[in-house]
Amino acid sequence: MSKESPGITVSKKDDFSEWYTQVVLKAELADYAPVKGLIVLRPDGYAIWESIRETLDKKFKATGHRNGFLPVLIPESLLAKESDHFAGFTPEVFWVTHSGENEIGDKLALRPTSETLAYSMYSKWIQSWRDLPLKINFWNTALRAEIKATKPFLRTSEFLWQEGHTVHATQQEAEGEVAEILEIYKKTVQEELAIPVITGKKSDKEKFVGAVYTTTMESIMPDGKALQMGTSHFLGQNFSKPFEVKYLDKNNTETFAWQTSWGVSWRLIGAMIMVHGDDKGLVLPPRVAPIQIVVVPIYYNEQDSARVNDAADKVEKILKEKGLRVHVDRRDQLTPGFKYNEWEMRGVPLRIEVGPKDVDKNKVMYATRHIKQKKDLAMESISSEIDEILQKIQDEMFEAAKKLLADKTTKTSEYSEFREAIEKGTFVDAGWCGKRECEEKIKEDTMADIRVIPFDSGNSGKCVYCKNPSVTNAIFGRAY
Amino acid sequence: MSKESPGITVSKKDDFSEWYTQVVLKAELADYAPVKGLIVLRPDGYAIWESIRETLDKKFKATGHRNGFLPVLIPESLLAKESDHFAGFTPEVFWVTHSGENEIGDKLALRPTSETLAYSMYSKWIQSWRDLPLKINFWNTALRAEIKATKPFLRTSEFLWQEGHTVHATQQEAEGEVAEILEIYKKTVQEELAIPVITGKKSDKEKFVGAVYTTTMESIMPDGKALQMGTSHFLGQNFSKPFEVKYLDKNNTETFAWQTSWGVSWRLIGAMIMVHGDDKGLVLPPRVAPIQIVVVPIYYNEQDSARVNDAADKVEKILKEKGLRVHVDRRDQLTPGFKYNEWEMRGVPLRIEVGPKDVDKNKVMYATRHIKQKKDLAMESISSEIDEILQKIQDEMFEAAKKLLADKTTKTSEYSEFREAIEKGTFVDAGWCGKRECEEKIKEDTMADIRVIPFDSGNSGKCVYCKNPSVTNAIFGRAY
Repeated sequence: MSKESPGITVSKKDDFSEWYTQVVLKAELADYAPVKGLIVLRPDGYAIWESIRETLDKKFKATGHRNGFLPVLIPESLLAKESDHFAGFTPEVFWVTHSGENEIGDKLALRPTSETLAYSMYSKWIQSWRDLPLKINFWNTALRAEIKATKPFLRTSEFLWQEGHTVHATQQEAEGEVAEILEIYKKTVQEELAIPVITGKKSDKEKFVGAVYTTTMESIMPDGKALQMGTSHFLGQNFSKPFEVKYLDKNNTETFAWQTSWGVSWRLIGAMIMVHGDDKGLVLPPRVAPIQIVVVPIYYNEQDSARVNDAADKVEKILKEKGLRVHVDRRDQLTPGFKYNEWEMRGVPLRIEVGPKDVDKNKVMYATRHIKQKKDLAMESISSEIDEILQKIQDEMFEAAKKLLADKTTKTSEYSEFREAIEKGTFVDAGWCGKRECEEKIKEDTMADIRVIPFDSGNSGKCVYCKNPSVTNAIFGRAY
Repeated sequence: MSKESPGITVSKKDDFSEWYTQVVLKAELADYAPVKGLIVLRPDGYAIWESIRETLDKKFKATGHRNGFLPVLIPESLLAKESDHFAGFTPEVFWVTHSGENEIGDKLALRPTSETLAYSMYSKWIQSWRDLPLKINFWNTALRAEIKATKPFLRTSEFLWQEGHTVHATQQEAEGEVAEILEIYKKTVQEELAIPVITGKKSDKEKFVGAVYTTTMESIMPDGKALQMGTSHFLGQNFSKPFEVKYLDKNNTETFAWQTSWGVSWRLIGAMIMVHGDDKGLVLPPRVAPIQIVVVPIYYNEQDSARVNDAADKVEKILKEKGLRVHVDRRDQLTPGFKYNEWEMRGVPLRIEVGPKDVDKNKVMYATRHIKQKKDLAMESISSEIDEILQKIQDEMFEAAKKLLADKTTKTSEYSEFREAIEKGTFVDAGWCGKRECEEKIKEDTMADIRVIPFDSGNSGKCVYCKNPSVTNAIFGRAY
């Protein structure tokens, strides 16, 4: 990319991948770390993560979850205890072999995920039915050495995430937990990030190794690739048996517990960038924007500067009192036009301009980022109208994203159409016989896999591939 | 420790170390991880960390700091770039040598601290005076393989902390930052954790390798050992030169920047346990207690249970409306006495008892944890008096801790008294000539080092060791 130009130099349509990288770097969300495949979050990038984290954390706590801390180092012997699970991660594990000059006996894995470590602890902590349910969430990072090309937020060798690990007395309660969490994820992504998702189950082939089944939320990006946005797994007793997570029930009978695990990562930020961004750069939904409103004072001589700056201060005060995240760009020597471009590139959802004529009329101008539009707003109406203006932006962004998802979903029962649609870069909603063989043949043929079997899937009646009776419809797509 | 008894089985005075470990484990703050030297935080332990984090985070943000994220992996070549710094950490570094089956060329260190990584990024981000000051904080963990005996919260091979890294245009501004942060630390520890600290500078021998000078806050624990509670370092240009953290000033002259770094860790939780705990277990200051008030309904027959439970619900509602963290212990089959013991062991600062006679009189009883006392409280006064009751607990705990610090500080100019006082387990406030030689001889002789040269230190006039004129008084002590 060109380091010289402060703006985005390619269009989203022409070179999506380069566009994405430029937005991430130039909007100062993240930067490359010295180790390949790793990134650093700059304050704006981290602030978005903090906003997502706060929203989820509140919802987790409101539903009876608490947070804990697990170390990043897991002994190989422990990681290998559930063998399917271990096999799934083993090519990606970073291994610590030395501390100082000394070789470590049982080498240590950097956590690719914490099921094994958490459940080795849970087996000590849980004695009786009184200790259940145990619902703990961990805000940490996971480390998986990426061999494929990496991409900030989407595929990195270390990523910020949360992983929830819960234990229940009954299968029914555990399955309820799996569903409750997926619903929390869905609401958060739709309401905060303004991205519509399709929720449902993964096929057996695509589920988390070690889970009985995996529920997922999926969306499609403007380049036609599917993105898994978060998963909630029903683990059944797959881990409680090897890890002896068991309890004495009310009749004093020793019983293996039922478990779940679930997580979302900073990949959500990547999705938000891709879905909402445009050729000028980032477009942030107001709910998660580190700066929701930028105020630009406009003046061209000394005379005006004092009263314009006073008016800008007044606007700032009004907005801060409402608890909004506002920034007044008071930099000298930079033109208003330069400032507009910069804040547009950084995705600030709303700009308020205060010029001498506005001050005369006791009003301001505002411009929205997601759609090019400018409107007047009387000074005395700012306080009462600003929430509505921001909510309207949030809603319109969500509506536009819903249209994208609808436009990029093809429903068909013809395999030729299926192939064309995949080639064009859409989801395909089609009948499936339920057999892994068809799933694998489709994958070989089109590079598409089953992204999700929606909870509200229909059933077209025939498998799009083998033409035998279908058990359900599924959403197929090519993934990142 | 005895796993059978739910209570603490040794006294704080007789076996401080075993007492401490039992409190940590039995109050369910933390547990040992499968890897030696690592611990897991259980929800109550993590909630205390969350409370400290929230308080500090607000203060950092209010003073213009923002948060970021740095990966845990640092290439050896980068870590070695500032050689004094590297030499200080090298025996403690965990090394990642493999990812999957593949050996890694430039082996990767698990972050012992992030100066090198952060400043390699900062040198890219900072171009001109407009980019300064840059003030970023990172909430993460640090990893240092401990060879000495480990202890939960006090000495572990991975620990939760925050590390702030700031860059300034002038030395004066950077030194102001160092002082501002130490003041934030001091206020937080005194107001939230109710632990008095002595602030000042480290001697040259004890400063952070790579710093020009280190400021610190220190306290003394009931066993007479000193504990470093947090440090704020003035780095001068020690890192900005090798890492090329420089900027164009207003005259377009390239200038090396001035830097600071600072951190506190979950060691603060360890200090809080040691300072306030007693033979019954944990004693939590109300400000950080995950549960501030436990309500225990008391009844011995069906008849009373309904009205007692109703009253307990009412108390809960009143306290929740005030935003307090309250828990009603509704467990059947457990006696009130059993519940009292359990919540006392877990350190809940205030217990409210609701029995049938209380209900008759439209009142409750309350018992404080830090001092054994029981009082009546009219139901209609709870809302108006509860804040004061909690604040009084907080204040009394702080006063008691101040008394401990005063009792455990000996001022002397005689070396024989100095040795006795150190042997007895106190701080010693004594004159020092400023020479490293005396500092080292005292250390050899008594195992005590200079913990801090207080900002408000006096000057006794003579060095306690060599009897030459002293440049200042210093606080000596044996450390963890």
